[in-house]
Amino acid sequence: MKLDLNCDMGESFGAWTMGRDAEMLEIVTSANIACGFHAGDPEVMFSTLADAEKNKVHVGAHPSFYDIYGFGRRPILGDSPAQIERQIIYQIGALQALAHTQGQKLSHVKTHGSLGNMAAENSELALAVAQAIYKVDKDLIMVVMPGMETERAALKLGLPLAREIYVDRAYADNGNLLSRKLPGAVLHDAEQASDRILTMLDAQAIITASGKKIQVAIDTVCVHGDTPGAVEMAQQLRQRLEAQGVIFAPMSEVLARR
Amino acid sequence: MKLDLNCDMGESFGAWTMGRDAEMLEIVTSANIACGFHAGDPEVMFSTLADAEKNKVHVGAHPSFYDIYGFGRRPILGDSPAQIERQIIYQIGALQALAHTQGQKLSHVKTHGSLGNMAAENSELALAVAQAIYKVDKDLIMVVMPGMETERAALKLGLPLAREIYVDRAYADNGNLLSRKLPGAVLHDAEQASDRILTMLDAQAIITASGKKIQVAIDTVCVHGDTPGAVEMAQQLRQRLEAQGVIFAPMSEVLARR
Amino acid sequence: MKLDLNCDMGESFGAWTMGRDAEMLEIVTSANIACGFHAGDPEVMFSTLADAEKNKVHVGAHPSFYDIYGFGRRPILGDSPAQIERQIIYQIGALQALAHTQGQKLSHVKTHGSLGNMAAENSELALAVAQAIYKVDKDLIMVVMPGMETERAALKLGLPLAREIYVDRAYADNGNLLSRKLPGAVLHDAEQASDRILTMLDAQAIITASGKKIQVAIDTVCVHGDTPGAVEMAQQLRQRLEAQGVIFAPMSEVLARR
Amino acid sequence: MKLDLNCDMGESFGAWTMGRDAEMLEIVTSANIACGFHAGDPEVMFSTLADAEKNKVHVGAHPSFYDIYGFGRRPILGDSPAQIERQIIYQIGALQALAHTQGQKLSHVKTHGSLGNMAAENSELALAVAQAIYKVDKDLIMVVMPGMETERAALKLGLPLAREIYVDRAYADNGNLLSRKLPGAVLHDAEQASDRILTMLDAQAIITASGKKIQVAIDTVCVHGDTPGAVEMAQQLRQRLEAQGVIFAPMSEVLARR
Repeated sequence: MKLDLNCDMGESFGAWTMGRDAEMLEIVTSANIACGFHAGDPEVMFSTLADAEKNKVHVGAHPSFYDIYGFGRRPILGDSPAQIERQIIYQIGALQALAHTQGQKLSHVKTHGSLGNMAAENSELALAVAQAIYKVDKDLIMVVMPGMETERAALKLGLPLAREIYVDRAYADNGNLLSRKLPGAVLHDAEQASDRILTMLDAQAIITASGKKIQVAIDTVCVHGDTPGAVEMAQQLRQRLEAQGVIFAPMSEVLARR
Repeated sequence: MKLDLNCDMGESFGAWTMGRDAEMLEIVTSANIACGFHAGDPEVMFSTLADAEKNKVHVGAHPSFYDIYGFGRRPILGDSPAQIERQIIYQIGALQALAHTQGQKLSHVKTHGSLGNMAAENSELALAVAQAIYKVDKDLIMVVMPGMETERAALKLGLPLAREIYVDRAYADNGNLLSRKLPGAVLHDAEQASDRILTMLDAQAIITASGKKIQVAIDTVCVHGDTPGAVEMAQQLRQRLEAQGVIFAPMSEVLARR
Repeated sequence: MKLDLNCDMGESFGAWTMGRDAEMLEIVTSANIACGFHAGDPEVMFSTLADAEKNKVHVGAHPSFYDIYGFGRRPILGDSPAQIERQIIYQIGALQALAHTQGQKLSHVKTHGSLGNMAAENSELALAVAQAIYKVDKDLIMVVMPGMETERAALKLGLPLAREIYVDRAYADNGNLLSRKLPGAVLHDAEQASDRILTMLDAQAIITASGKKIQVAIDTVCVHGDTPGAVEMAQQLRQRLEAQGVIFAPMSEVLARR
Repeated sequence: MKLDLNCDMGESFGAWTMGRDAEMLEIVTSANIACGFHAGDPEVMFSTLADAEKNKVHVGAHPSFYDIYGFGRRPILGDSPAQIERQIIYQIGALQALAHTQGQKLSHVKTHGSLGNMAAENSELALAVAQAIYKVDKDLIMVVMPGMETERAALKLGLPLAREIYVDRAYADNGNLLSRKLPGAVLHDAEQASDRILTMLDAQAIITASGKKIQVAIDTVCVHGDTPGAVEMAQQLRQRLEAQGVIFAPMSEVLARR
């Protein structure tokens, strides 16, 4: 079985650093790079692209609501789906140009934070995301929450899509992530988190906090780089899954197996 | 004789508007569109691109220092040429993607405000600008101050270049614009400004505030849209030049005559 | 009968201007000055304070969500009431210091945009607003939506409060403003708007878009400065109300009559 | 001998953290708190104030150029001294209000980064800083570079002033800090740095990178919190100076000895 391991990266900004990107790039197969709207700046984007290249990690855009102060984690209402579409096109374009100048090509797009959570449950917003991607380059893979509106939007436009589960986040019974504000929303124990992923892969299902199983296909697993112990969790997950015969490969190779 | 008429546009931001872009688009042949670093946001960029298309006006990127508060007019030191190069690539890429999604192609790049003024006199900065353009697309026309470092940088890289003079700005004896803080730096009288341009075109020379003549080729004239009377000045200039036999055409057509 | 006439002001930012503040300052008795979170910057705040002083207009703070791009009009979720309280304290403090340096004292605080709308319906948020004001200076008047949570919060803390109605905004049946996105939410006809205010003052009641009457005390009327025809509407309103015997005076004088 | 030990703090922003403030607050006697223009936000400012209070550390404002992206380290030209004055008043006011709400009072003001460096050499800018402080509260201590324009400006207005040297920064022969871009500008060895401070205190002189001695009075020593090893350097410095009989006390007590 082939599986992609992805991580949000390039989330430093100006004088501030976040995450242990250099270490994560030795573990993951895909990097979702912030595009300046919730984190990242041209300098951070450029060096993250370059570091990914050195590690043969595939790169994608990680667009967000326009909210540096809130790190894209605050639900912001009031921008229409059409406006969100334009904001995403802007962000993909900026990263795409930086990638192009060093001979790299974007492989995928994954929305960040509140934009991702809201799109998962809002069909208009999900379609805005899918259209933004489609209009920029219809070969870009859209990373989606399986069973949610983002998956339906990608299917509707015929975009290649990668179904993603999270190593360190608990799931609500509707298939979306539990809000970070709820207890137990973030898993901190590497072994427990790896066990859960193994069970999900085995069952090809999301297992929610309440124990409910939601049948889904799984193409990629997201690990986070900005929590303490994240690198260790990612390392352990990769080792244990490889021990079970999983072969890690970038999204495009995983999708090609279908 | 063919000549391009260009104007900085899309310099509104969020709830704030600037300039009379709709009227200007009926007069000019090229629009330099702000890319979100000194003004402009994805929404403004998108609608400015669309409005330009309706008027068959060619579009280009108008990148700036990262300075919304200062509208890109404050000299900001401390970013290296390499950092500036990445900031420009980011901005061109963002606009390029928005243009691409509606079937438009960028024709040129013109730096904004302090970045433009500083690059005109600083060979390292000028080269950073030229390299950013070259790396994104070496067919993009670089708009330059004739006789200055930006012209030399474009020539060095073999970029197509358009030599520009300003209808409403006085010139220092080194060929750069007089600082906006100096008296007489901005011309407000449409007739006087048109007379001056006619004289410059006739002489194929910049005529400085002190009366000095600097021999240069002239491909494009810049009119501003954000000062009172700017539209009227642009209209009068166009009419008077057309009466003298000048044919207005986008930069690429002007350059093709060479 | 005494009545205050207030207007949101100082909503320019950097190179962008908004509103016709100079003209409005000749008409109104209180100015709500933006504090840099949705609009305004130290320069704009300073000059707006100075211009108000020249016109003997009382000044107050107009704090907002931290959202320059969205002009404070986008509902932003995710900041806790305690965080909002601190954001408001920051904003009042900044304006207070600028006022102090030219011998002025703030008379009131009125929340802006989405923060105001959300606080009107959310008791926790309303209390955060009231506490911020109370902690900075318990003599500051809190401008409230009559009948809504903001009024209750001010009463709970014993803050002086001014009950406000809007000249150019339609009301929902719960007493809050109709969303700007709904048809008829903004009134543009000066005569019609003045008629409505006269009827409301007469009845001491808010009259909603559907015709429902909500009994409330009315201390101040808000006119807007950023819509076309706003100055004319404010002028006509003031003239017609003065013709009916209304005496315009700053909030503190209006409240003293109670 | 009494001496103050000060540290820049509260330089986190939104989701990003910087420095080891909690540990530093156990070592220093004064905290210079960022005010939102280069770092810091209302939440960070509030919690830094509260943490300082718990450690009986005196608090002051640390205003900057308006430059979040550049962390206030980029020289920004183009704002007039009067504009800078207003920007500083805004920042002090914001922090002052947050301090006031928890019963704290600001003791001092120290400019940050490029603003500080530029004011040290520019008499107009130095006077703008001093005037901003004076207008807000003429009892606030102005932290100055001894022998530089900031010291002269404070003396001119009769402000209480604290003369400061840096534990980890090398000095140019004009008495200003060496630019961070030059080799040797930042000292990393705790023992060497402590030795140098002891020699300076002994000589009551700044000792420049070239070995030149500039006679100055010394009231406070600045330690940094955002470099690796900074906490250890501060600890070692404090221990060694205390072993030599130095008594550490907040600025106001140090100044009272004069």
